[in-house]
Amino acid sequence: MRAGCDLAIRGGTLVTASDQFRADLGIRDGKIVEIAAEIADAREEIDATGLMVLPGGIDAHVHLAQPTSDGTVMADDFLTGTRSAAAGGNTTVLPFALQVKGSSLRECLTAYHEKAEGACYTDVSFHLIVSDPTPQVLGQELPALVRDGYSSFKVFMTYDDLVLNDAELLDVFDVARRERALVMVHAEGHDAIKHMTRRLEEEGKTAPYYHAVAHHQIAEREATHRAISHAQLIDVPVMIVHVSGRDPMEQIQWAKKRGMKVFAETCPQYIVLTRDDLKGLNMDFEGAKYVCSPPPRDTDSQDAIWEGLRDGTFDVFSSDHCPFYFEGANETGKDNPRARTSFKWVPNGIPGVETRLPILFSEGVRKGRISIERFVALTSTNPAKLYGLYPQKGALVIGADADITLWDPERKAVITQASLNHGADYTPFEGMEIEGWPVRTILRGQTIAADGEVLEQGRAGRYLSRATSSAW
Amino acid sequence: MRAGCDLAIRGGTLVTASDQFRADLGIRDGKIVEIAAEIADAREEIDATGLMVLPGGIDAHVHLAQPTSDGTVMADDFLTGTRSAAAGGNTTVLPFALQVKGSSLRECLTAYHEKAEGACYTDVSFHLIVSDPTPQVLGQELPALVRDGYSSFKVFMTYDDLVLNDAELLDVFDVARRERALVMVHAEGHDAIKHMTRRLEEEGKTAPYYHAVAHHQIAEREATHRAISHAQLIDVPVMIVHVSGRDPMEQIQWAKKRGMKVFAETCPQYIVLTRDDLKGLNMDFEGAKYVCSPPPRDTDSQDAIWEGLRDGTFDVFSSDHCPFYFEGANETGKDNPRARTSFKWVPNGIPGVETRLPILFSEGVRKGRISIERFVALTSTNPAKLYGLYPQKGALVIGADADITLWDPERKAVITQASLNHGADYTPFEGMEIEGWPVRTILRGQTIAADGEVLEQGRAGRYLSRATSSAW
Amino acid sequence: MRAGCDLAIRGGTLVTASDQFRADLGIRDGKIVEIAAEIADAREEIDATGLMVLPGGIDAHVHLAQPTSDGTVMADDFLTGTRSAAAGGNTTVLPFALQVKGSSLRECLTAYHEKAEGACYTDVSFHLIVSDPTPQVLGQELPALVRDGYSSFKVFMTYDDLVLNDAELLDVFDVARRERALVMVHAEGHDAIKHMTRRLEEEGKTAPYYHAVAHHQIAEREATHRAISHAQLIDVPVMIVHVSGRDPMEQIQWAKKRGMKVFAETCPQYIVLTRDDLKGLNMDFEGAKYVCSPPPRDTDSQDAIWEGLRDGTFDVFSSDHCPFYFEGANETGKDNPRARTSFKWVPNGIPGVETRLPILFSEGVRKGRISIERFVALTSTNPAKLYGLYPQKGALVIGADADITLWDPERKAVITQASLNHGADYTPFEGMEIEGWPVRTILRGQTIAADGEVLEQGRAGRYLSRATSSAW
Amino acid sequence: MRAGCDLAIRGGTLVTASDQFRADLGIRDGKIVEIAAEIADAREEIDATGLMVLPGGIDAHVHLAQPTSDGTVMADDFLTGTRSAAAGGNTTVLPFALQVKGSSLRECLTAYHEKAEGACYTDVSFHLIVSDPTPQVLGQELPALVRDGYSSFKVFMTYDDLVLNDAELLDVFDVARRERALVMVHAEGHDAIKHMTRRLEEEGKTAPYYHAVAHHQIAEREATHRAISHAQLIDVPVMIVHVSGRDPMEQIQWAKKRGMKVFAETCPQYIVLTRDDLKGLNMDFEGAKYVCSPPPRDTDSQDAIWEGLRDGTFDVFSSDHCPFYFEGANETGKDNPRARTSFKWVPNGIPGVETRLPILFSEGVRKGRISIERFVALTSTNPAKLYGLYPQKGALVIGADADITLWDPERKAVITQASLNHGADYTPFEGMEIEGWPVRTILRGQTIAADGEVLEQGRAGRYLSRATSSAW
Repeated sequence: MRAGCDLAIRGGTLVTASDQFRADLGIRDGKIVEIAAEIADAREEIDATGLMVLPGGIDAHVHLAQPTSDGTVMADDFLTGTRSAAAGGNTTVLPFALQVKGSSLRECLTAYHEKAEGACYTDVSFHLIVSDPTPQVLGQELPALVRDGYSSFKVFMTYDDLVLNDAELLDVFDVARRERALVMVHAEGHDAIKHMTRRLEEEGKTAPYYHAVAHHQIAEREATHRAISHAQLIDVPVMIVHVSGRDPMEQIQWAKKRGMKVFAETCPQYIVLTRDDLKGLNMDFEGAKYVCSPPPRDTDSQDAIWEGLRDGTFDVFSSDHCPFYFEGANETGKDNPRARTSFKWVPNGIPGVETRLPILFSEGVRKGRISIERFVALTSTNPAKLYGLYPQKGALVIGADADITLWDPERKAVITQASLNHGADYTPFEGMEIEGWPVRTILRGQTIAADGEVLEQGRAGRYLSRATSSAW
Repeated sequence: MRAGCDLAIRGGTLVTASDQFRADLGIRDGKIVEIAAEIADAREEIDATGLMVLPGGIDAHVHLAQPTSDGTVMADDFLTGTRSAAAGGNTTVLPFALQVKGSSLRECLTAYHEKAEGACYTDVSFHLIVSDPTPQVLGQELPALVRDGYSSFKVFMTYDDLVLNDAELLDVFDVARRERALVMVHAEGHDAIKHMTRRLEEEGKTAPYYHAVAHHQIAEREATHRAISHAQLIDVPVMIVHVSGRDPMEQIQWAKKRGMKVFAETCPQYIVLTRDDLKGLNMDFEGAKYVCSPPPRDTDSQDAIWEGLRDGTFDVFSSDHCPFYFEGANETGKDNPRARTSFKWVPNGIPGVETRLPILFSEGVRKGRISIERFVALTSTNPAKLYGLYPQKGALVIGADADITLWDPERKAVITQASLNHGADYTPFEGMEIEGWPVRTILRGQTIAADGEVLEQGRAGRYLSRATSSAW
Repeated sequence: MRAGCDLAIRGGTLVTASDQFRADLGIRDGKIVEIAAEIADAREEIDATGLMVLPGGIDAHVHLAQPTSDGTVMADDFLTGTRSAAAGGNTTVLPFALQVKGSSLRECLTAYHEKAEGACYTDVSFHLIVSDPTPQVLGQELPALVRDGYSSFKVFMTYDDLVLNDAELLDVFDVARRERALVMVHAEGHDAIKHMTRRLEEEGKTAPYYHAVAHHQIAEREATHRAISHAQLIDVPVMIVHVSGRDPMEQIQWAKKRGMKVFAETCPQYIVLTRDDLKGLNMDFEGAKYVCSPPPRDTDSQDAIWEGLRDGTFDVFSSDHCPFYFEGANETGKDNPRARTSFKWVPNGIPGVETRLPILFSEGVRKGRISIERFVALTSTNPAKLYGLYPQKGALVIGADADITLWDPERKAVITQASLNHGADYTPFEGMEIEGWPVRTILRGQTIAADGEVLEQGRAGRYLSRATSSAW
Repeated sequence: MRAGCDLAIRGGTLVTASDQFRADLGIRDGKIVEIAAEIADAREEIDATGLMVLPGGIDAHVHLAQPTSDGTVMADDFLTGTRSAAAGGNTTVLPFALQVKGSSLRECLTAYHEKAEGACYTDVSFHLIVSDPTPQVLGQELPALVRDGYSSFKVFMTYDDLVLNDAELLDVFDVARRERALVMVHAEGHDAIKHMTRRLEEEGKTAPYYHAVAHHQIAEREATHRAISHAQLIDVPVMIVHVSGRDPMEQIQWAKKRGMKVFAETCPQYIVLTRDDLKGLNMDFEGAKYVCSPPPRDTDSQDAIWEGLRDGTFDVFSSDHCPFYFEGANETGKDNPRARTSFKWVPNGIPGVETRLPILFSEGVRKGRISIERFVALTSTNPAKLYGLYPQKGALVIGADADITLWDPERKAVITQASLNHGADYTPFEGMEIEGWPVRTILRGQTIAADGEVLEQGRAGRYLSRATSSAW
């Protein structure tokens, strides 16, 4: 005889990447086992009347506990980072395991695993970052790791510590082609940024705002075109991450139109911030709170990003959560003496794992720019498919992990630092008014956050080995 | 206590417009009531192991029992047409109710209802065709009919009997705006076609092939641009039906890119036929078998259509089933004395309601051009949404009508006239090799066709009143 | 022995459509016979030191003494119109000979010739306007007239009195193809404008400003696409006249990029006016001064037009001089009782033949948007070539008519009604500050205007028979 | 009293970049002093009846006597190279003065001057090639040389000996901006080419044909986009040289459309050769005769190049003459032992200075693809303007150098190695049938070549100091 459910979520509106409908949802052994008009029996019940029942959010672009070369300390480790993620309606996050130059990729990865072990509220898997593509890395470590379930890795076209030159990019792409991995590209032109930085510094333009001038949209467009061209030459799919504006986006549209397998991601900062936010108050250091790469652009680019979110140019909407303290922490955050001398020393990144879903829902779904089904696709189903987690994750289907976010589409909220769970001491979205909020986060059938509280017993996140990306 | 299921479909792979997964599907009272890992109890069972469980096909563009002004007789009435549809994996068809010039729209509609009553194997609803937009029609009949559930209507930019001039088109669009109806547009430029026809006839070029020259792609592109512009001016969504080639398609892409609410449909003939098929054997009358409007184009246009099916340019894939006899039927078909004198008298249309799904599956899904989820979106979910039938139709969701097609993705078949159920005496797709075939069609829980046999007791199709299109 | 020159223009800078250089220019018998470092001997001399020596302006789009159906009287006949043209640096104008519906084209033309005879200060030739393409016109009159040197004709896609439907347009294009004539198209969608007009009137929006709403840019873009498509189908070159904005311009760019023989004209009103000018003072009737078709658009369209002037999208820059009185003239001008009731009765057109060259020079050449060579191409050489007057007109070459404008690039002026020579009682460019002004106009070796004075003895303009357009 | 002419060219048709007309042309002291219907008196006369009188050809992209790092010897020095140029209708050539890495730019230049001194049949000026942008070069040598009249310089994005990285490119662009120089860019992506080369070699694909695979059009497109982006960032005009195909060309069109100051050059090999020519006979070493960079592409790219020549995408048509021996010369040419082991060792370049004008005239003007005026613009006037030689060179205007090519538009010829004057032992255009040929080349009033014979007394070419490019 068939066993009953451990948990039934009753009366909600289930939403997938293509459908929405009223149904009960039944869970057993951490899996979705039944979707029905009425579930007969369950040991436990949740009343979801008036709520949306969504597949749990997957934040596919998160930086946690990442070492830096300049003494800066990241404001989130796995504990605080995944706690913040859970509070924000996420059940899976994908942080990066960064290879420090001169080190073994696998050793770096091991260190991350150690840091994550037992510290996670959500499920977790790692993208690799390849910064030192030695023959050892390309010939042995990387292929082996892909086969071990690290099926995506990221490369940088800028940053002194991380940048790969074109020859290296091509070699890495070649490995991806052979191993059917998905390469994520941070596409900004390093030399262009350095040139602009030097010029601005020579002109005495050192305030945080000038970060947005140095990291010019032209440099992002150029690198995007270059990455796409290299991928086309090697014949490998590629994911352009954190696309900030119209110019790079149009390169992606051009490539997609020509049938190339180019995928794209964008983030909350590119739809609700602009470069003017970096001006702070009269060009003061407040602007440092908004320093990230690529920087926010202008309202025309915001319009373009919405167009791309709607029409399928963007496949994934992530946070690029990369949190630093603003003031505190013994000068290990944004406001450190060197950063005061030039924007180029301002730690580069902003927190956002907890606010990603509310911002997209409020600005996108509530304002009629995207449908709720597209919201689910962008924030959960597509990242699951593209990063090899589907159908275990990212879908309300039978057999999937019971990762579920209950969403109140009417709930009004104001984003404030006081209400957030991340480690940083500020949020760049302070004061933003939101309609729609996650009211319960369920991981494999267990509630891990509810009504803004993250449950301590919920710290049961597991590591996820991943399959080949759907990009192949 | 919860009631058991009437029918359980076990062990298949359910496919929606975004997901696919193994599950049992349970039906009660003609509705989907449960999707589960294992359904406990059901009065009846179907073993779907190895099969895909799809939402029943919705053919949104079908001509049945339509009167003509030249004595031609359509080869399918509601009985044969819906039988053919059911055999081809469809559970709903949307034929047209054509207003004859000088007649009341509602009276024409009543005649269709009489013809359809009791004769349908599938569920049926009607698009209206407005050919005579008198003040009476625009001011009273049409608004009333939209409110009565005829939420879409079609207009023609060509054909002597049907063509609306621009002033009329604008007036009709205005009604659609006020009533939130969806206008479908047959976009070919009437005067251009007539000009070309006259010139070709003067040159003695009267074989069926010259139909494809007279109905030039330029004329289709021009009319498409014109329809889009008028819709933009009135601010009303519009559906461009049966788009045949690259040129008109690029107009639609341009409009979508600019944020206009332009939707598009294409058909099997534009992916597997070309204008060369109209040449028959050495320009003989065999070519008449392929005469339809717009005509098939060339391989470049086929490539373009695939691009559009993949990237979302096309929302709907229909058959434009418009069947005529080739030889038989007392000169009421394609081969009649007048048609032998000029292509312009060849009855205009081809059968295809039964072969639509197999052709798209075989050429699209099996050959890796589109995903199975996209197949479901194009052939079922999107038409349901855009024509106001969702979520009753077009989705495997709880509460929906249990309209289901069981699909064998491995089944090989060859399309032959002998094997088809339509009324026509030929198929333009004769001899085409297919991989993937519908093996059972279930309407509201009742099997209406199985293994190529349409069940007589399945003649239980109902009329469907429709809600406002999702285009609004 | 070689004869000396009648006239030498010494010391100026000659400018052609590709070159500029210092030289003397010698004239004999009304022709340019010598260009030299130093001309030896001449009976008469003009010192052009510091001046530019340009080929005389050719205004290829001018309405003079045109009859109307509503009792309006055009403010310029051939006498005042060509006087104004001469003062503005022009040596040739191309007015239209309009076929009144129901009349013979040739008879209409004869009437124009009679009006022009002996009344012209500049040379003159006629474009035909075909408003009634009867078999007689298409089969006999029009072909005969083209062969007689009327190698261009214009068709209208709007205006009740003039509009041709698509069938007629195609027939006319066909004649152009056979006779190698150049068709000029007024591209605005008639039905769209009428629809908008009716709607605006119903809403009580009758002020002159609403002319610019009714004549929507979408209607112009649609008609432009339609005209281009018909020309492509017939395989005939076409000239789209008075292009007003980005949208129709991009249609032309698209056509040119695809290798179609599409040519384009724009006018001063589209680079220095916007639709806001039609608002007058607080939406009053002052706005009627700017009513023309197509109407001026917005600053984005102005930018687009400049882009097109620079990059070759536009071949010709004309005035579309179509002058009406504003106040005077016994209610035969813009301010008549009917016009006060609705914008649709406001006489449609503005004067501009005298200000065309100064505006383009000042806004274009002086402000660095276009080169002086491009100025010459747009205002003289290209119209001469495209309308079959080259090399007799439009060039500073040996053997050409000695039609020359001496231009002072430094001269500052303000456009005022008081300083102009046209027949209208206002100028839409009142108060505009200009740098660069024509200081002497020479027609076939005779000065016809100097220092703002038109010389009575200069009334020696001749009729010009024209050859086939260079478009063929 | 005015002096008479030294030379009169009578009865020809003068052609400029915008006009053509019958006139006599008079020369005194090596300058054009008179253009007239009939020139009175001249000490010497040339009858040009039936001929075109063109401004002498300017070949703006020529490699002569350039040192190599691999022992290869260039087949032309200044003597043979300029003799070949003169025979082909050119009066000015612009070879490169290449900075060898580690050397002073000025010293390298001095060496070229020494080689050229007294050896030239045509006038000559040098573009610089910057291969080693040291602070000394960027800060002192280069600025000084630009001011000395070397107003253009070239940079390479590929070749081990020459490639600049992006930081260097940006620095060099910055100098160009400050000094208002024109940067010419060889745009091919170095790392992409090396990657492809290595892969092809690993696969044993070493025949000359694979040069065309390694130098992939994608690599050219990517580098073109990169160069344009860098120029946009620095705000400096840029000339993309030897554009080979549709892909890079469309980048240039995109940039021009957006108002960037991007200029472009193409060459004969891209309109009459394809990559299949590199296959030789059955992939043998014959293909080495066509090895140049970028390589010829395919017929679609040829169509694109013609489109760009017509519509103004291309400003300049040069030869990229870079001649090597095929067989002879002690293994210092293409057929050397190392080149037999891999395409990458095949000396990279083809001869063409003598055949450039005939090929463009025959394929372009005679076949109706471009006008004769456009021919003059592309081959003489535009290069003169863009490289700071105008109006001394490139125009038939008073005061210009009397550099004139008499062209017989009817003369038929076949290109054969035997008939050419260059130093190489083959021509890649062997056997090509030509209509139109230069029958006399006149440099500053002196005939330097006539009827295929270069006159020894014509060896009077001078060095030309150049002004700022018209690009600024």
